[in-house]
Amino acid sequence: MADEFERICRLMEQLPPCGEEVRVGVGDDAAILQLPIDNDVVVSTDTMVEGVHFRQDTLSWADVGYKCVAASVSDIAAMGATPTSVLLSLALPASLSMDEMLNIYQGVADACHEYCVSVIGGDLVQSSQSMLTSTVLGKIDKKQALLRSGAKPGDVLFVTGHLGASAAGLKLLLTSYGMRDALDAAYVISRHRRPTARVLAGQTFLRYGVNSCNDISDGLASELNEIAKASQVRLRVEIEKIPLHHATRNVARQLGESALDYALSGGEDYELVATAPPVVYARLLPLLEAVRLPITAIGRVESGDGVVGEWPDGKLDVILATGYHHF
Amino acid sequence: MADEFERICRLMEQLPPCGEEVRVGVGDDAAILQLPIDNDVVVSTDTMVEGVHFRQDTLSWADVGYKCVAASVSDIAAMGATPTSVLLSLALPASLSMDEMLNIYQGVADACHEYCVSVIGGDLVQSSQSMLTSTVLGKIDKKQALLRSGAKPGDVLFVTGHLGASAAGLKLLLTSYGMRDALDAAYVISRHRRPTARVLAGQTFLRYGVNSCNDISDGLASELNEIAKASQVRLRVEIEKIPLHHATRNVARQLGESALDYALSGGEDYELVATAPPVVYARLLPLLEAVRLPITAIGRVESGDGVVGEWPDGKLDVILATGYHHF
Repeated sequence: MADEFERICRLMEQLPPCGEEVRVGVGDDAAILQLPIDNDVVVSTDTMVEGVHFRQDTLSWADVGYKCVAASVSDIAAMGATPTSVLLSLALPASLSMDEMLNIYQGVADACHEYCVSVIGGDLVQSSQSMLTSTVLGKIDKKQALLRSGAKPGDVLFVTGHLGASAAGLKLLLTSYGMRDALDAAYVISRHRRPTARVLAGQTFLRYGVNSCNDISDGLASELNEIAKASQVRLRVEIEKIPLHHATRNVARQLGESALDYALSGGEDYELVATAPPVVYARLLPLLEAVRLPITAIGRVESGDGVVGEWPDGKLDVILATGYHHF
Repeated sequence: MADEFERICRLMEQLPPCGEEVRVGVGDDAAILQLPIDNDVVVSTDTMVEGVHFRQDTLSWADVGYKCVAASVSDIAAMGATPTSVLLSLALPASLSMDEMLNIYQGVADACHEYCVSVIGGDLVQSSQSMLTSTVLGKIDKKQALLRSGAKPGDVLFVTGHLGASAAGLKLLLTSYGMRDALDAAYVISRHRRPTARVLAGQTFLRYGVNSCNDISDGLASELNEIAKASQVRLRVEIEKIPLHHATRNVARQLGESALDYALSGGEDYELVATAPPVVYARLLPLLEAVRLPITAIGRVESGDGVVGEWPDGKLDVILATGYHHF
């Protein structure tokens, strides 16, 4: 990559212009952001590695670029904050063509447009294994934030959207199984390739007094345990209420697997799981319905610790971070 | 890396506690920083790849951790800003032992202590090739910053410290040449393994009215061309004035190479190159002498473009980004 600077210039042309908060963007030693004086800085980083987080037969280069940014934006969303800027470090083989690199940036540009963020810096280095690190900065009103540690006994436990679709999409991509319903396949694969970070939902949760929140990157089971541990409470989940899209159910059935397992242990859904007093939940329900992002109550917060799954027949499971385990 | 969370906890124990500006550190979806209301946010990122930026026979794991943080801090220093926080993404082979990972964090901790920064987030993923990405955030008074684009005709061109030592150290590490003088070897190798980001110098430059600044990560030739291009000026360098440590000269001589080449094209010195009006330079000289960080005038800024090297005999070279080339 002798022509690193030229490459960076061509790549940058793919991207939308910077927002007004960017005082200094790409092209100096560091970037400078001017946030509103009553705001704090929120920041998170995510790395995607070829062969671990993606393969060339599961994600296109554009999907890789999109998903890397979306994953970091999702962390900002889970705090109730507003993402503003991205730094992107690309470690790529010398054999990667300029077109493939431009495809990565096209995906990054798609994510930048979708989440109203701009690329303000990064790094481009050579490696044998492809690896992307996206760092997203955001802003939030001073002394505000949705934390994992705020869940309180009596809270409703709820999630945005549907869970398990990303894992179903990945499983489908990794098998040669011919899907009977192309629409179902297209839905779950698109959830795997282009997940949506729930920025508006997170901001709304913060404004309306949600007590705790986490984004679902590692599977619901893991995220629930994080909230329970950080908040020192017990979460009781009504297993049958976990929202599974019919496409996810259909794909799981055809693959002989469990859609519920996808939701609990699959990960990469990037929906939000949160807890709020019942009155807050009741206010949120129609609001998010109106923007076509349904939220679903899946349980409640109690005194105690750990995560307990409750089946319709009254049987109880303890749900560990890795998924559900029978007593 | 099944016990990723446990590992992260053990690694975090190596690190110094967070500064007062950290509202939310490691352990939630994102970190939150509360900067002074009259400050802007400065941010930069650097990636180091095994086999490209380091090898196990050139840097210890602790050096890798230290250097990755120092490289990003250096970018913040070159803006005249104050580093506050680091996010660290580690992509490491499953075969790496816990002790080796702890060594990386020991080096990171050394850098955190040296530059008064704290680790506020990151990522830990599996890969076949080791790769570290450090993102450093800093703060700077609103509307202030040392940019590459501020050089003005009439400015003095100067650098901090000595150049070329890091490249000399690397060359020595890559050869089996037995050095006659162990002190010389130790000096250049330590400059390669534990370079110093010039935070105090950058802050002083900003306070005293320096017009432009760059950190020397890719070699002086490249950095000078960046300033010339960004500022739309010509830089005239008196080649003989480029400060080379006697240890660097000795090592170069024994290896049959040119210490000047190391300075111009070697990179990774992480000194600063800057331009300032003569009266500002005159004020800086004793100030930085007092803190044992000598600065050396190496030329001047003129109208025009490009970078010109001037030899004592009056011969002129054009210095391209890759090093010096005869007309």
